[in-house]
Amino acid sequence: MKLVVVRHGESEFNELNLFSGWEDVDLTNKGIKEAKHAGALLANQNLSFDAAFTSVLKRSIKSLNYILERLDQEWIPVHKSWRLNERSYGALQRLNKAETAEKEGKERVNRWRKSYDALPPMLNVSDPRHPVHDRRYHNIDPHALPGGESLKTTLDRVLPFWTDQIAPLLRDGNNVLVVSHRNTLRALVKHLENLSDEEIVHVDVPTGVPVIFEFDQALTLVSKKELLSKET
Amino acid sequence: MKLVVVRHGESEFNELNLFSGWEDVDLTNKGIKEAKHAGALLANQNLSFDAAFTSVLKRSIKSLNYILERLDQEWIPVHKSWRLNERSYGALQRLNKAETAEKEGKERVNRWRKSYDALPPMLNVSDPRHPVHDRRYHNIDPHALPGGESLKTTLDRVLPFWTDQIAPLLRDGNNVLVVSHRNTLRALVKHLENLSDEEIVHVDVPTGVPVIFEFDQALTLVSKKELLSKET
Repeated sequence: MKLVVVRHGESEFNELNLFSGWEDVDLTNKGIKEAKHAGALLANQNLSFDAAFTSVLKRSIKSLNYILERLDQEWIPVHKSWRLNERSYGALQRLNKAETAEKEGKERVNRWRKSYDALPPMLNVSDPRHPVHDRRYHNIDPHALPGGESLKTTLDRVLPFWTDQIAPLLRDGNNVLVVSHRNTLRALVKHLENLSDEEIVHVDVPTGVPVIFEFDQALTLVSKKELLSKET
Repeated sequence: MKLVVVRHGESEFNELNLFSGWEDVDLTNKGIKEAKHAGALLANQNLSFDAAFTSVLKRSIKSLNYILERLDQEWIPVHKSWRLNERSYGALQRLNKAETAEKEGKERVNRWRKSYDALPPMLNVSDPRHPVHDRRYHNIDPHALPGGESLKTTLDRVLPFWTDQIAPLLRDGNNVLVVSHRNTLRALVKHLENLSDEEIVHVDVPTGVPVIFEFDQALTLVSKKELLSKET
């Protein structure tokens, strides 16, 4: 059984070099192309998926739709969860990364961006950007909704979803597709590959590159294959 | 609480005048436009949906995706079920409607197409077009998979889905979007509006026209509104 993870294509905020986090920004035209290309790369692998998972953010949902269309597997069940959302960048969301580095200092911003356990400046619950104000999270315990996350706390909320929703399907012999976000996938990869807090700092997940994880029946990781060709 | 039903946009088989049924044919460019336009009409109504349902056929899944994109509500849960598939046209699937009328007689074909309880010529289980051969139905009791359906037997398999999956959400005060097929929606409308077997013969559901059903708390139908403008 195989787990395939894909990071969504380039988003409007990626293009503008803004912190996105839980902001629900759209794909750029380049991002759409990247998603379709990821679909083409996966189509070459002749993979049959049994289920797909994504976040409740449109850059991932749409990337998944483009991939499923290319695979001619639109009919598989798709589950969307806030637990697969990007890491919340808290009060940094919507800010320019370069400008923030100038204002706050490069080292500080680098720590927010790269270190495993640094929390960004948190969103106050009264801030309209806080997820408690968004209808899509109204059925979730407000205390579980983050005002900002480190990579570590991102993993804390991704892990129950892996354990309860994704892993059981793999155990049952299904192939599963996960389309999610840079830091969500970094957190998941840290868990799957059993990387240390230091090791994960140097791992990145590029947009639109499918990664195929193969497991044995005990759900031990057997292989990891990246489909690297960025050209069609 | 509101139930909105939309028939998918024009499919390749609609355009070619072929019987489609459970054949998984794609939208035409006109069909894509119709789906987007349905989304625009719904966006004017300022409707917030809590869940969406569709079939496991791409012409409906894609139409739903276009509508959700236009509504900026891609994040709502989407459930796909074979119970919302088009009526199975059995051995007529892939055949031209006009040619079949010439060969079999206009009256006979009209009876297959229009009457409430006429079954089409059935697909044998050994026929590669029978759904038992399609991976997407492998987790369904093979005895439940039709080799051909009348409008009546279509309603028989839609009704449990209405009762178990859709109606409870409406009872709980949710707005629900259903994107499905001509005869599936005719069957559902027959049930919702309590139409007789004769009355339903004269009811059609055009592509891309959203119909809004409003219910009271006892799930009694209060109003039905069709969003008719075919122009943007």
